[in-house]
Amino acid sequence: MDIVILLYKGFTALDVVGPYEVLSRLPNAVVKFVAKQKGIIESEYSSMKMVATHTLEEIENADILMIPGSTTAFLNVVKDAETLHHVQRIDATTQWTISVCSGAVLLAAAGLLKGKAATTHWGLLDMLSKFGANPVAERYIQHGKIITAAGVSAGIDMALYLTKAVAGEAYAKMVQLIIEYYPEPPINISDFSAVPKEVEEAARAFFKKEMMKMNIAAAAMN
Amino acid sequence: MDIVILLYKGFTALDVVGPYEVLSRLPNAVVKFVAKQKGIIESEYSSMKMVATHTLEEIENADILMIPGSTTAFLNVVKDAETLHHVQRIDATTQWTISVCSGAVLLAAAGLLKGKAATTHWGLLDMLSKFGANPVAERYIQHGKIITAAGVSAGIDMALYLTKAVAGEAYAKMVQLIIEYYPEPPINISDFSAVPKEVEEAARAFFKKEMMKMNIAAAAMN
Repeated sequence: MDIVILLYKGFTALDVVGPYEVLSRLPNAVVKFVAKQKGIIESEYSSMKMVATHTLEEIENADILMIPGSTTAFLNVVKDAETLHHVQRIDATTQWTISVCSGAVLLAAAGLLKGKAATTHWGLLDMLSKFGANPVAERYIQHGKIITAAGVSAGIDMALYLTKAVAGEAYAKMVQLIIEYYPEPPINISDFSAVPKEVEEAARAFFKKEMMKMNIAAAAMN
Repeated sequence: MDIVILLYKGFTALDVVGPYEVLSRLPNAVVKFVAKQKGIIESEYSSMKMVATHTLEEIENADILMIPGSTTAFLNVVKDAETLHHVQRIDATTQWTISVCSGAVLLAAAGLLKGKAATTHWGLLDMLSKFGANPVAERYIQHGKIITAAGVSAGIDMALYLTKAVAGEAYAKMVQLIIEYYPEPPINISDFSAVPKEVEEAARAFFKKEMMKMNIAAAAMN
């Protein structure tokens, strides 16, 4: 099972590693980390760096293509026709194409979500409509071979769902047990609607600040 | 807030990145990834590589020291007096010393858990007793400035607990919202006792095979 994970400067680390830790345990999994260039790729905080083992160019096909998100850097990739072209090209060969967080915006920008139900980080749902997708606020959602997940940690839930689809429920449970994924968040936020207003506003202010750093109209986040 | 995260050949990626994604958002967080040598460090599956930004030697002090686990590679570090010495030395300067999964065995081997309540991956609890700790099967547990977490994904819960302790509940909730951590595992395993026996046996067989690859008596896992 060839699993190809896109890296790009500014990716969110947990978007990559949450699904990776699950999917790398699929039977016969071979995971390739790909980017425009091989070598060290900085995540959104520069001290966290991962390594691209292959260039996008080198990838002819994949069973699973995974596109991670980022707080702001995905907006650079939206404008990068070369990367979007490779995403389209590899997607044409996959059994599954999946995204985490704002990775869905990249799938949408590559024209792969037109008319499809899809999800992304709660702060970015509107952006999906701009590219012709039908945004839904779900933890993850499947439309044909495409599965999009909500923000960051939702990628873990999505990857377990995909593991169940690929290798069966008993296998998915085994992986869940190996990574001890029976979460007990110490602070109870059962879903977005349970989030206090002032906490939501603090989070929106955080995103706005990040966007400003990139010189992007803060309005894009509203 | 200086956060120092240990890397070593064979680390489990989500042990590192789960807590990282939470703790890197602490106010004024500066995260350093440290290893014996700077540069690229392979995780337990060799295609996933991260980068050590500093050597252990270079670290004089830290506010938070984080020790990740691994399926088998931690057993090499248990025998590595130099790394254990640096763990002791840096721990002497910290406000918090934390571990994920078998990282607790490294803290124990460094003599930092003697007589203390601690947890680790469910498959390794007995190993903590061998180093004089009092193993408990909890998602995470605090003893003074030391917090140990259970396997892999438990590090996310533990890091949110620590964020609450350091920066308050509203701040921890904001981080939780940013990373959308209100998990909905698609397969319901509410806790270890809810795991079917055959799934547990499959997981134990998986670990045994990994141990055999390392030429370590499989008995160590029982």
